[in-house]
Amino acid sequence: MEKGTLLYEGKAKQIFETNDEDVVWIQYKNSATAFNGEKKADIDGKGVLNNKISSLLFSKLAEKGIQSHFIKQISEDEQLVKRVRIIPLEVVVRNVIAGSLSKRIGKEEGTPIQKPIIEFYYKDDALGDPLITDDHIDFLEIATREERAEIREMALGVNEVLQGIFKEAGVTLVDFKLEFGKDRNGTILLGDEISPDTCRLWDAETNQKLDKDVFRRDIGSLTEVYSIILERLGGNKLCTK
Amino acid sequence: MEKGTLLYEGKAKQIFETNDEDVVWIQYKNSATAFNGEKKADIDGKGVLNNKISSLLFSKLAEKGIQSHFIKQISEDEQLVKRVRIIPLEVVVRNVIAGSLSKRIGKEEGTPIQKPIIEFYYKDDALGDPLITDDHIDFLEIATREERAEIREMALGVNEVLQGIFKEAGVTLVDFKLEFGKDRNGTILLGDEISPDTCRLWDAETNQKLDKDVFRRDIGSLTEVYSIILERLGGNKLCTK
Repeated sequence: MEKGTLLYEGKAKQIFETNDEDVVWIQYKNSATAFNGEKKADIDGKGVLNNKISSLLFSKLAEKGIQSHFIKQISEDEQLVKRVRIIPLEVVVRNVIAGSLSKRIGKEEGTPIQKPIIEFYYKDDALGDPLITDDHIDFLEIATREERAEIREMALGVNEVLQGIFKEAGVTLVDFKLEFGKDRNGTILLGDEISPDTCRLWDAETNQKLDKDVFRRDIGSLTEVYSIILERLGGNKLCTK
Repeated sequence: MEKGTLLYEGKAKQIFETNDEDVVWIQYKNSATAFNGEKKADIDGKGVLNNKISSLLFSKLAEKGIQSHFIKQISEDEQLVKRVRIIPLEVVVRNVIAGSLSKRIGKEEGTPIQKPIIEFYYKDDALGDPLITDDHIDFLEIATREERAEIREMALGVNEVLQGIFKEAGVTLVDFKLEFGKDRNGTILLGDEISPDTCRLWDAETNQKLDKDVFRRDIGSLTEVYSIILERLGGNKLCTK
């Protein structure tokens, strides 16, 4: 597989063409951003940590039958994934009240949620990725009712698998953000990444934050807590070749 | 019917007990507020206009079989309504993009909406009445799935009738906010008011704003445009006894 032209550069990843038109080459960056890009930093080692954690989690999801764009990790900070057209929704799954939901509905962070809450945010930086409803998605023609149902079901499936994985690792899966895409056949695949950038992860005993909130809220070292997650997931044994 | 103790004072209305425990006495106030109470003014005549317009619209809805709390208008600025327990949702129906939706999804004000958009906002001043989704409503236990379906259906029914009424009056019904309550038997009734305070109403020819946006945006006389609405609805012939 050959790395080709840069197709797209996001806040946390670069995406390159390959010589296979159905495959793209992802390079994880060291940049950390928060609050829709208002807060920024370059953090050595972040790209490697997220690439390893994300590769590991996508692999475990695949073992449980959850299809994603992930093909394989090819270096410390690179992976190959299937080319998809991203559906412009940030799909958030919540098991515990935290972050924006705490502010929105006035419930304290840490309040458990019995039946997971799924939220759709419109993936649009200029608009600040606003919360949207099914009626908005219909109007914007982002996804059909059937596609939304499929996405919800997949998101709940991912939640179940990830909750199991993190529970074994002594970590509470508070909430996380997923993105989905369609391949050339229109099949919906889980896309983007799953990492402490996109999940809220709390130590199950102490509730210590082991995710990007340490950066957002200036309460610790990002690489230190991301390393704890990688270690607890057994990522040290990971072969990168 | 006797006016009793003040039960509740809102931004636009006072609600009094009566000697019938299933009936409350509503007095429309002259206060105008916007932006969650940040902007305020006292405007002579506003209470009378809204009471007349709201009474007229509730009567027309009743003729079309839409149940509301409205019993009758009893003076220039007072009406009797059935006592209900208000469901803490602001139900917004939209036929044309305007206001917060324009900002949320980045579509220009005035863009028509083919299939009406219904939104639920959590009626909570301290939180700024945030947009919420079905999953949030489930978590907060505000209304069951069945109640939401009933509310949506009623809201669409109200929209159809109001669109007809306003079309005849040469007015575009851009969007409006409804509230619903339950009577002692658990029956869901349309509540609150329907007036230029709670509707966006544009002249069908000129798009002149004939609603509270003239106050929100300082672009005209509130009583002047509310009077136009009352007049166009035939409200001058209204008997207030």
